[in-house]
Amino acid sequence: MKQAEPPSLSALIQALCCLPGIGKKSAQRISYHLLQRDRDGANSLALALTDAMEKIGSCERCRNFSEAPVCGLCLSDKRDGSLLCIVESPADVFAMEAAGYNGKYFVLMGHLSPLDGIGPQELGLDKLAAYLAGAPDTGAGGDVREVILATNSTMEGEATAHYINEIVRKYQIRVTRIAHGVPLGGELEYIDSNTLSHALAGRSEVP
Amino acid sequence: MKQAEPPSLSALIQALCCLPGIGKKSAQRISYHLLQRDRDGANSLALALTDAMEKIGSCERCRNFSEAPVCGLCLSDKRDGSLLCIVESPADVFAMEAAGYNGKYFVLMGHLSPLDGIGPQELGLDKLAAYLAGAPDTGAGGDVREVILATNSTMEGEATAHYINEIVRKYQIRVTRIAHGVPLGGELEYIDSNTLSHALAGRSEVP
Repeated sequence: MKQAEPPSLSALIQALCCLPGIGKKSAQRISYHLLQRDRDGANSLALALTDAMEKIGSCERCRNFSEAPVCGLCLSDKRDGSLLCIVESPADVFAMEAAGYNGKYFVLMGHLSPLDGIGPQELGLDKLAAYLAGAPDTGAGGDVREVILATNSTMEGEATAHYINEIVRKYQIRVTRIAHGVPLGGELEYIDSNTLSHALAGRSEVP
Repeated sequence: MKQAEPPSLSALIQALCCLPGIGKKSAQRISYHLLQRDRDGANSLALALTDAMEKIGSCERCRNFSEAPVCGLCLSDKRDGSLLCIVESPADVFAMEAAGYNGKYFVLMGHLSPLDGIGPQELGLDKLAAYLAGAPDTGAGGDVREVILATNSTMEGEATAHYINEIVRKYQIRVTRIAHGVPLGGELEYIDSNTLSHALAGRSEVP
């Protein structure tokens, strides 16, 4: 069996297995595809990987991925600095942008998870406090008037939102949580009962 | 939207999209995972990619992937040189090895597909002819006594097998095709009718 496979091919298959959602079989298929049909693509992927790992760090203010010390979103003066949206990951920033949000962000890069050793320190909550207080080096200038908690609607996300709520209240800043309920286009009979009871509790007056 | 993503991250997502089975969304998820949790893995993947693309070529005899001019399987003297199994891809070599086959291989690296410009030349059938004739530089020494056609059981695979059959016959060498029928553990009611009629036509005497 081993004889049939050059060592550098085994190494490539092994390395591909480290990608999330890629198992042994897919890794093999991908390797064969690259070797047979797309060697240029493989070389540019290698370059892109090295390049991204080298250049991309965290924004000093919002902790989002950034090549510069402070990211474009934080520096932009076209965005509403009085709104601060707190999300778990950079992917959530994307989702919020697509939804039309135009304020600033703070990216936790995870959620509270004591069992995995992820506490307030790891989520940069001290940095968040400094941001809200308007410490000179955060560039926030203390003009945040509303903090929007947009952590995921999971157990951990809710716990994290609750914890951050306690911090923000100290600064007499308004705290809101994004609404949970029936998704647009969702049919009641297919919605889980927890979501539905949430939607019921959060009902609003018909204008 | 663009503002939210550093250019090297966009480039990485773009490059990951060239992998088969990976779309925009998976590419994004993989990039985020690597940046947040597995930068070492990403760097070793980059190395493995470059390394494999640089080192791996084709075996001069069997056309399988190989780092050396002639691959380990072709050079091995523990394998039966009188059997030559013809398969479409290196993945098929793996499957045959797992099934306990112990002869030599010839890997077509594809199948006849005139519409895609893949003809006998692209499949190295001239090399196969030289191999069967026992040309000195092929190292085969003309001792092949049976050619086993193990191309896929698809339209293209069957056409390719048919074409190769015509070539091999010229050398008065026995040609066989792997059996098609009901897979072990397969239940008749769930087998498609083509396979079943094949299995019926290919029935053998109970000893």
